[in-house]
Amino acid sequence: MQMKLKPITDIEIDADMNVKDLTAQMLASGGFTAKKLGVACDIVRKMFQEKECTIFLSFPACIISTGTRGVIRKLVEDKLVDVIITTCGMLDHDLARVWRKYYHGDFLMDDADLHRKGINRLGNILIPNESYGIVLEQKMQPILDEIYKSGKKILSSRELAYEFGKRLTDRKSILYWAAKNDIPIFVPGITDGAFGSQLWLFKQQHSDFNVDVMKDEQDLSDIVFTAKKTGAIMLGGGISKHHVIWWNQFRGGMEYAVYLTTAEEWDGSLSGARIREAVSWGKVKENAQYITVEGDATITLPMLVGSVLSSGRPGRH
Amino acid sequence: MQMKLKPITDIEIDADMNVKDLTAQMLASGGFTAKKLGVACDIVRKMFQEKECTIFLSFPACIISTGTRGVIRKLVEDKLVDVIITTCGMLDHDLARVWRKYYHGDFLMDDADLHRKGINRLGNILIPNESYGIVLEQKMQPILDEIYKSGKKILSSRELAYEFGKRLTDRKSILYWAAKNDIPIFVPGITDGAFGSQLWLFKQQHSDFNVDVMKDEQDLSDIVFTAKKTGAIMLGGGISKHHVIWWNQFRGGMEYAVYLTTAEEWDGSLSGARIREAVSWGKVKENAQYITVEGDATITLPMLVGSVLSSGRPGRH
Amino acid sequence: MQMKLKPITDIEIDADMNVKDLTAQMLASGGFTAKKLGVACDIVRKMFQEKECTIFLSFPACIISTGTRGVIRKLVEDKLVDVIITTCGMLDHDLARVWRKYYHGDFLMDDADLHRKGINRLGNILIPNESYGIVLEQKMQPILDEIYKSGKKILSSRELAYEFGKRLTDRKSILYWAAKNDIPIFVPGITDGAFGSQLWLFKQQHSDFNVDVMKDEQDLSDIVFTAKKTGAIMLGGGISKHHVIWWNQFRGGMEYAVYLTTAEEWDGSLSGARIREAVSWGKVKENAQYITVEGDATITLPMLVGSVLSSGRPGRH
Amino acid sequence: MQMKLKPITDIEIDADMNVKDLTAQMLASGGFTAKKLGVACDIVRKMFQEKECTIFLSFPACIISTGTRGVIRKLVEDKLVDVIITTCGMLDHDLARVWRKYYHGDFLMDDADLHRKGINRLGNILIPNESYGIVLEQKMQPILDEIYKSGKKILSSRELAYEFGKRLTDRKSILYWAAKNDIPIFVPGITDGAFGSQLWLFKQQHSDFNVDVMKDEQDLSDIVFTAKKTGAIMLGGGISKHHVIWWNQFRGGMEYAVYLTTAEEWDGSLSGARIREAVSWGKVKENAQYITVEGDATITLPMLVGSVLSSGRPGRH
Repeated sequence: MQMKLKPITDIEIDADMNVKDLTAQMLASGGFTAKKLGVACDIVRKMFQEKECTIFLSFPACIISTGTRGVIRKLVEDKLVDVIITTCGMLDHDLARVWRKYYHGDFLMDDADLHRKGINRLGNILIPNESYGIVLEQKMQPILDEIYKSGKKILSSRELAYEFGKRLTDRKSILYWAAKNDIPIFVPGITDGAFGSQLWLFKQQHSDFNVDVMKDEQDLSDIVFTAKKTGAIMLGGGISKHHVIWWNQFRGGMEYAVYLTTAEEWDGSLSGARIREAVSWGKVKENAQYITVEGDATITLPMLVGSVLSSGRPGRH
Repeated sequence: MQMKLKPITDIEIDADMNVKDLTAQMLASGGFTAKKLGVACDIVRKMFQEKECTIFLSFPACIISTGTRGVIRKLVEDKLVDVIITTCGMLDHDLARVWRKYYHGDFLMDDADLHRKGINRLGNILIPNESYGIVLEQKMQPILDEIYKSGKKILSSRELAYEFGKRLTDRKSILYWAAKNDIPIFVPGITDGAFGSQLWLFKQQHSDFNVDVMKDEQDLSDIVFTAKKTGAIMLGGGISKHHVIWWNQFRGGMEYAVYLTTAEEWDGSLSGARIREAVSWGKVKENAQYITVEGDATITLPMLVGSVLSSGRPGRH
Repeated sequence: MQMKLKPITDIEIDADMNVKDLTAQMLASGGFTAKKLGVACDIVRKMFQEKECTIFLSFPACIISTGTRGVIRKLVEDKLVDVIITTCGMLDHDLARVWRKYYHGDFLMDDADLHRKGINRLGNILIPNESYGIVLEQKMQPILDEIYKSGKKILSSRELAYEFGKRLTDRKSILYWAAKNDIPIFVPGITDGAFGSQLWLFKQQHSDFNVDVMKDEQDLSDIVFTAKKTGAIMLGGGISKHHVIWWNQFRGGMEYAVYLTTAEEWDGSLSGARIREAVSWGKVKENAQYITVEGDATITLPMLVGSVLSSGRPGRH
Repeated sequence: MQMKLKPITDIEIDADMNVKDLTAQMLASGGFTAKKLGVACDIVRKMFQEKECTIFLSFPACIISTGTRGVIRKLVEDKLVDVIITTCGMLDHDLARVWRKYYHGDFLMDDADLHRKGINRLGNILIPNESYGIVLEQKMQPILDEIYKSGKKILSSRELAYEFGKRLTDRKSILYWAAKNDIPIFVPGITDGAFGSQLWLFKQQHSDFNVDVMKDEQDLSDIVFTAKKTGAIMLGGGISKHHVIWWNQFRGGMEYAVYLTTAEEWDGSLSGARIREAVSWGKVKENAQYITVEGDATITLPMLVGSVLSSGRPGRH
């Protein structure tokens, strides 16, 4: 055997171990998925050290209903990412949680019973109607009216996210921090959720109001074609992941990519596709640093972010 | 034990067994996921027998790159569904396969090597650049020009799908049959793929050209508010599944729902959510007939469709 | 592009399609997992055509509680396999179902309530205590006594399975057909279940009674070292799969292997390991024909068996 | 809405966060799987505080090939568990790593190439033949000879594990610490792996040598019938998990149970079964504290153990 191999040692765990030390040991010797999580921390740290790397963050809506929203907010608050691509429901949950509360529940609760009580279940999170559809209509329509009256009648999803974000004062909100830190939020499926339905409702009374999805594409084009390097932290699949890698193919692929997922590769889905598949498409560079880490992002993301925070992002002005 | 219980018997399999007989036995005694597939066949058969039930079909793009596209086409060709909601990539693959060929590959091929050869990998399907981006640009731009010159400068995704479909002659194409049979195709994330990028490219030279995503929502509103009953066959999660259940909540939920998925429930995702979660939201009725069947739709869909074809859809004019 | 590629065509489905035709189309064009299922049918058909190939079948206990037991029984009844390796629970369920009935249930039933009713839940199968523990004790102890009194006081798992099988008359039973057709059943974890507990109970009163697990190993050694070629159909992972591939490594690996599984590769488990991992260990030959098919065996196994039955097994005397 | 609900707050993450603080926040607000991991930490902490609770630990072999072995060893070294049930491969890897090294690899390495180099792949761990089969034969046969010559010719798996453990001096070894701390290790599938094959090899020359699997069952019977309370930490499914819950049903079920798994519930397997299924069987008490946490144990176990170490186990002498 002539290969040069790196030996496995054992993780030494103790009662005060911090997250950063644990992921460092996982990189050194965790094996299986732990090793991949260690590699992910390492790649994100390198991404952060790059002077001129545009970092995308993508995630679906569901995670914003959980406390893990705070971990994503930290990335935005500390300007650790540059561009966000997400789904309509992210706007729903971030706004709803600014105005009302979500609650602990259980995956196995009786859904018919919850329905009769006016409570929506999202995994093990409970969302009463008054914390969601009702409050979103109540609060969003006046804001849309204000935006409309200011002369903005046709807006991209990015502009809509910004207009809402800048009107918020809640420092728990991702929209608030994105607006404050000038981090654009793109929502390629803007009609698919409560926020989209409120836009549609508003349009019933204001026929010259509309969404311009092409303007988002123009902005994304400007971002990818001026970027020196690009990288992405992608949580989950679907349209938010795809839109990140789709646009990056037009610049020859990303230099860095970390994908946290629970999806199966074998069904051929975009969500299940490991990052290496994106290499064949030129969405990620052949020589990029990338890793796919399997597991629920509510566990792996806090470990990842906790591990890289201390290094900061010197490259960011 | 006072419960009335139905006993399990054993499946009797033989060399000439047809798909319908097998799924009937699965319903009677398959157990585990086979039982659920049997239930799904039963629910779809009942849906088809309804005189006035609007049936939604949703699916992601990936499956259109495979031969399973033929099974979906059959549903459209035979008018077994009424409304389609899908992703941008569905348009890409259906059109690309009208004009060029896709090929057999393997999940484990070397992606860097494929990239150098100009071949994109989609699971175990190979898509040469000349069968995809190149041909889509070549063929789509003249069609867009024709549509534009006919005076249609601002179109919904449904209108775009129809305009393309009616210009095709390939009887393998889903777009062709949807246009011919007047089955609307909605694409709520219309910018997220090659079709969307071609729209954006076209707009560079035709600034008054645009997509009107609000018009799709108006059409969907009309459909759900006039429907007597609704049902859905949903393949995979993401935006296409969500848009079906999202709109159906506004009419108090669907009467029938079948969901074929590989996604995990425990990550709290919309894709992983079993249909029963939608009951709490009023997206599916409390007394609806519904089932979630785990497994790759390339296997379960042909079995489902093969099992229900013979019963036809007498309720459909 | 100089690679010689095979194009994807579309599956043509019809109302009378039989299982064999469907899997043939899946092989030709199914894509994703359907393609793999098509390949699996093809490999098993080749395995069956081999004149001198010893075919192993492995499976865990759970599937024997379902109607899919009938599909496995067919393989044994028709002498399509030569050696079975399974778990203790397989003996439990096959015997319990000879003497009593199992029932339809649901994954989401209230387990505390079932417990109070004396019903055990196995996925969506219900097993009343009187169909399981109670009847197994009642019926097994006299049979063990009979075996013991015949002078057989120390038996291997294979011998035990045979002794029970030859005393049965129920043509639904796998043990019955295995004994009748002289197909050995090995249970490397013989103590882990109700059958094992009954052995232990019997030993309380008959201290010279025992199980000889080494004798099973000797028999397996004889089988693999005299086999000209070997192949395996493996349903699910765990000890039954491992014991098949473990022993086959001693003869330099199997020539054919089909693995039906739901397990994840990324957790590094034996169950999740794809067959190709076994190539590195010499458990499967480098040039073997093998495939791993993801999905629940209650769906994929009936399709596989339905597809290969017609070709029979000419190589089997 | 009259239900009393606990609101979701956001996780506040910082650069020095330790594992214990993070899991405490996950319990308070993580949502989805993170919440479950938080609950698992809480349950294990309560289990440790019990004065008279017999704690079982079960795990499969694969994880012992990784650095996570160190985390399991810590549980044994610090006497935090009382009984271990595992698979044969656990003995293989613990012993092999006492005598030789394992190495870092990748899930996607070329297995035929590795085979030609004499390297076995276990997920992303590499095991050269000289670190495994070769050294196990070399080192185990003399030890077996020593045991045999001491007059111990028929041993249970527990006795074998102890005899090997007490002959080791490597403080990284789980067998070493289990022997030193008098924590029994049971291996119900003792023949299924390299250790088992070495026993079989030894028996070729020593026909009166044998394994007594019934003796293990007697010992387990003594343990469960004398235990005041019982609890379990179970990593992964298969025979090791089943044997823990199987025996605990005879005392009316466990009081505490934590299960870390990647397996799917929908295939009806024992591995996929959530703990609540065990309630119907009386393997876990109706009023027990239990949780199933989805994800790879190489990530979740270090977080769990890191979180509970500080509380220690006052109830343990």
